[in-house]
Amino acid sequence: MWRIVAVDSALLNGVSEHLMLMKGKMLRPTLLLLSSEVEQSAESRAAAYAAVVELIHLATLVHDDAVDHSVLRRGMPTINALFTHQVAVIAGDFLYSRAVQELVRLGDLEALRVFAKASNELTLGEMRQLSALDALQFSEDDYEFLIRAKTAALFSGACEVGALCGAARFRDRMAAYGSHLGMAFQVVDDLLDYTGASETVGKPTGLDLKEHKVTLPLIAALRTMPRSSREAVDALFATSEPDDTQISRVIGIVLEEGGLDYARERGEEYASRADEVLAGLPDSPARRALQDTLTYVMERRA
Amino acid sequence: MWRIVAVDSALLNGVSEHLMLMKGKMLRPTLLLLSSEVEQSAESRAAAYAAVVELIHLATLVHDDAVDHSVLRRGMPTINALFTHQVAVIAGDFLYSRAVQELVRLGDLEALRVFAKASNELTLGEMRQLSALDALQFSEDDYEFLIRAKTAALFSGACEVGALCGAARFRDRMAAYGSHLGMAFQVVDDLLDYTGASETVGKPTGLDLKEHKVTLPLIAALRTMPRSSREAVDALFATSEPDDTQISRVIGIVLEEGGLDYARERGEEYASRADEVLAGLPDSPARRALQDTLTYVMERRA
Repeated sequence: MWRIVAVDSALLNGVSEHLMLMKGKMLRPTLLLLSSEVEQSAESRAAAYAAVVELIHLATLVHDDAVDHSVLRRGMPTINALFTHQVAVIAGDFLYSRAVQELVRLGDLEALRVFAKASNELTLGEMRQLSALDALQFSEDDYEFLIRAKTAALFSGACEVGALCGAARFRDRMAAYGSHLGMAFQVVDDLLDYTGASETVGKPTGLDLKEHKVTLPLIAALRTMPRSSREAVDALFATSEPDDTQISRVIGIVLEEGGLDYARERGEEYASRADEVLAGLPDSPARRALQDTLTYVMERRA
Repeated sequence: MWRIVAVDSALLNGVSEHLMLMKGKMLRPTLLLLSSEVEQSAESRAAAYAAVVELIHLATLVHDDAVDHSVLRRGMPTINALFTHQVAVIAGDFLYSRAVQELVRLGDLEALRVFAKASNELTLGEMRQLSALDALQFSEDDYEFLIRAKTAALFSGACEVGALCGAARFRDRMAAYGSHLGMAFQVVDDLLDYTGASETVGKPTGLDLKEHKVTLPLIAALRTMPRSSREAVDALFATSEPDDTQISRVIGIVLEEGGLDYARERGEEYASRADEVLAGLPDSPARRALQDTLTYVMERRA
């Protein structure tokens, strides 16, 4: 990653340094590398692709945080908070165009096609989120479209490009695994916003509600909640900066209405689809690690 | 261009429609098409590349305007003004990733390499501009680096990719022509900010000074101006929103110190270098049109 972003600009090097410190689970590069090994014949270029997928991911995080005016990410200041909003916009463009340059250098048009498509889908997901006029009208179909575009597309791309580096005949299968895993990952991520503790998630619980983001637990709960609960939800969404009492109240309502259970079940469904895809692969250490990844994604508390 | 950006999103279609209305001189696609014809054997794919280069240009304009909080461009509202800042950031990402997808579809890695490099240079230029701490310390070398990255890189890329579509043996030559032309274009553009009338340029005269942007005429004038003039310049740069009187005063100083003449001469130098490059090409209608383009760039008043 450092090799790809190396540049003669103190400001951009500062941005890159901060991003490297901020680095998270490295899930996308891990998936790419594991996917390249399912036939136990991974090519060395997989490492460069793994760096690229993380850089693409970082570029989107930097723009997401700028667009949302977020100040914290993984418990650390965001680029827009630490530098400026302007720097965040241009730094995201820089990271993305460097990633494209590296893809060109690697010379595989198929890998470029996969990542270009995933990157474009990410923007469609973001745009869908921005154009939601009435958040509480957001349907489960809308939610599915959104998380497919925002999360599953790049997970899928990581696994597909991994397969291209040593297990090309499993390309479609790995793409499907990555997509199901990505859906499960995002559902669990959205659940953690309702259940996780601030220390472990690295962001305050209830942040989505605070920012008026409607995710699956609330979508499910809205279907059955009585009028008095609905009024509490409406009140929260009508308040520009809802306080902790309002947020706790709505989290309680969502729990009561079975919204968390419903989301958990949908997450499990995606995870078992991913597991079924893996069942069609030959046994290997990589396949077992990909199964463990599913368990990790479903059981993580942070 | 419409084919490449077609998408199922009312918001993105709204953005694209506005950008198409806003469209300017289409200089980059014109250069690409003319460059493809210098051996009178242009390939049909040149048209798709011409669309791509304009989309890349539009993507950068959208992000530039968002970063600068500009409200007008070519006399029309910017995307951030007409929609929101958020929409502008994501729409820029959308346009750029669509352009990359089209480049992948066209399947020529060399063209991709050229445009990926130019796009990355654009971000380096923008970043350099953002990291200038003391605007008045901006040297002629800094200015040259900036306009090379911000303007000449994509002009050069347009001409180089044009050459790849039918005149490949002139690839380097066309890249050099585009680079010199781009430098001349930007110097003249910066001059017009000092000399042009609001009606013809589509933006108010003196806007760069208003935004504390230091361009070549001022850089040159700063070298010789007496202390009283320098104090007027310092005062303008110390005022967060300088008024028209301050701006007129500084424009007068720059004129007096020969800053406009100096910049004009530098522009002419770049233009003659571009002309020398053309002299090495076989005679053709395209070559004559590229010579006319030089004249147009140097003589334009808008």
